[in-house]
Amino acid sequence: MKIYFSGSIRGGRDHAEWYDFIVKNLNSFGMVNSEFVADKNLTSYGNIELSDSDIYQRDIDLIKDSDIVIADVTIPSLGVGYELAYAEKLSKKIFCLSHYIEGKKVSAMIAGNNNFTVFSYKNREDILEIFKKIFK
Amino acid sequence: MKIYFSGSIRGGRDHAEWYDFIVKNLNSFGMVNSEFVADKNLTSYGNIELSDSDIYQRDIDLIKDSDIVIADVTIPSLGVGYELAYAEKLSKKIFCLSHYIEGKKVSAMIAGNNNFTVFSYKNREDILEIFKKIFK
Repeated sequence: MKIYFSGSIRGGRDHAEWYDFIVKNLNSFGMVNSEFVADKNLTSYGNIELSDSDIYQRDIDLIKDSDIVIADVTIPSLGVGYELAYAEKLSKKIFCLSHYIEGKKVSAMIAGNNNFTVFSYKNREDILEIFKKIFK
Repeated sequence: MKIYFSGSIRGGRDHAEWYDFIVKNLNSFGMVNSEFVADKNLTSYGNIELSDSDIYQRDIDLIKDSDIVIADVTIPSLGVGYELAYAEKLSKKIFCLSHYIEGKKVSAMIAGNNNFTVFSYKNREDILEIFKKIFK
């Protein structure tokens, strides 16, 4: 099973530690084909060796090649929003994880969309429980 | 001409003054059907009178009903990213405006996508010049 993991890059890297935990644990359920999203050395400037067009094409190809898309939607991100809609167009299975933060709400375009399942987590144990539900 | 304007709501309202200027000026080129995005009283909690599903369906219907989509992509936003991909799927004409901020880059999924034209602005005059190019 190929898993595309989507998380914020230029929207901000505050959640990179969580992405790393998520990707490491997703790897026991399948092959994450976008591990670079969880690279803790990657800054919000993004990959400086590829052009924007190359990044765009690479990510689109990886989404097409995946069986399932899992996104962390905690940090608002244009790219994550775009990728979720793109994956939806391709009828991929899509699951979103959102770190619970008091007073913060996930975009209605995500939370109000019947094609997306949004799971809220507070800690690492919650993430592992969510994975059990997704991959059962 | 019906114009759908897309801007960040739950991603943060720091740019609401700019959205207001953009929408007021877009109204001389057509009818903006999403003026609520520019409501300076709207907080990042969003509309509290509608369910997420109702917001989702309203915005999708407005995008479908529009002739052109204009997005301010300065503030990272899941909703804006989603809406841009959705509008692209419908082959709408799409233009993005980005407030120039030193060291900040627009998502590669937007800037690297050939179907989107991204204009950078520094001030109000730039926005008016961009509108002249879009609507010429």
